[in-house]
Amino acid sequence: MSARRIDFYFDFISPYAYLGWTQIRALATRHDAEVRPIPVLFAALLNAHGHKGPAEIPPKREYIFKDCLRRAAAFGVPLQAPPSHPFNPLLALRAVTAADGHAALIDALYARTWGDAAPRGVDRPEVVAAAAAAAGLDGAALVERAQTPEVKAALREATERAVARGLFGVPTMIVDDELFWGTDSHDFLEQFLRGEDPVDPDELEALRGLPGSARR
Amino acid sequence: MSARRIDFYFDFISPYAYLGWTQIRALATRHDAEVRPIPVLFAALLNAHGHKGPAEIPPKREYIFKDCLRRAAAFGVPLQAPPSHPFNPLLALRAVTAADGHAALIDALYARTWGDAAPRGVDRPEVVAAAAAAAGLDGAALVERAQTPEVKAALREATERAVARGLFGVPTMIVDDELFWGTDSHDFLEQFLRGEDPVDPDELEALRGLPGSARR
Repeated sequence: MSARRIDFYFDFISPYAYLGWTQIRALATRHDAEVRPIPVLFAALLNAHGHKGPAEIPPKREYIFKDCLRRAAAFGVPLQAPPSHPFNPLLALRAVTAADGHAALIDALYARTWGDAAPRGVDRPEVVAAAAAAAGLDGAALVERAQTPEVKAALREATERAVARGLFGVPTMIVDDELFWGTDSHDFLEQFLRGEDPVDPDELEALRGLPGSARR
Repeated sequence: MSARRIDFYFDFISPYAYLGWTQIRALATRHDAEVRPIPVLFAALLNAHGHKGPAEIPPKREYIFKDCLRRAAAFGVPLQAPPSHPFNPLLALRAVTAADGHAALIDALYARTWGDAAPRGVDRPEVVAAAAAAAGLDGAALVERAQTPEVKAALREATERAVARGLFGVPTMIVDDELFWGTDSHDFLEQFLRGEDPVDPDELEALRGLPGSARR
């Protein structure tokens, strides 16, 4: 029997996706599952839904940074400010795309974004190259490949497929076509992997089919 | 020494606010705190920030209903579909405003929205009156008072003050001017009440002061 697969969708821009990445492989191991990391452009998800990201609403921006510090403390992982935020994550996302979701590369890039490694700032080619080297890859070659039309198109297509699968944020985990969003969904994802998801199809259908009687 | 106070901001439109309400009094009791419930109009919070609610993004709407069913199961409380959603929550919010945040009235109104009591649908005056009666109040008189200009203004002003305090969603809990958002923040709220909040002011300042280097 082949292992179940958890598709892990992420963008380096999101501290929640970083926090989720620090936990998801151990979570998967507890359930004999494997993780397939899939880089996507969070901004394109927001654009697809005409939505604002948490960092675009000033009081929410401040709150989510506190919330991330609390979650990092609970997980026992470092959380440090990147040089800038928001920053352009495209080069880092494309590098992971070019490296076919290489886990050690994701580790190294996240360590230079929200973790505590130096040099920092994965919007800079030299930092992406350093991260690649730390992951045992040829940094210069990867940075060059990340900027080819094929890799750019592959990231764009992965993001479009993610929207088609119902993604509206990161991190998102999908297993057996069931979507879980955010680091606060880990317990529910584990419950699902144990075959103990309490969602009753009839109750869900009643909620899903609710007619609106007011709009703002 | 007077008890610490948790301001609990809610709107009947939000199933998360319902779930939070089912837990917040027991949480407060564990920390010798008291709860002050404050009704606010969620739609006005969204308008203030130019933001969309979760029910306004189709795949997110479906996901949050599942997430609420899972949280309700974890809390061991009923979660049933109201007759419609979104619905107009103003009458119910104004009734609670008129009754000065009467806890049993909030219980009775939520039971007829997301809980399992009948008749259902708190956008109807007869249901609000029935809820008031179940809470030991004069239903007809309360419904009448809820529609006075004074009560309407009081709800509007409470919502404006909430925006000024930094609210961007419901449920929000504020204690000692520290804001906690959502049912997934309960553990962090308790940590804060124990005096064990791990947020380091310097780390927070570094995150809060981050310059942006890209915009979408």
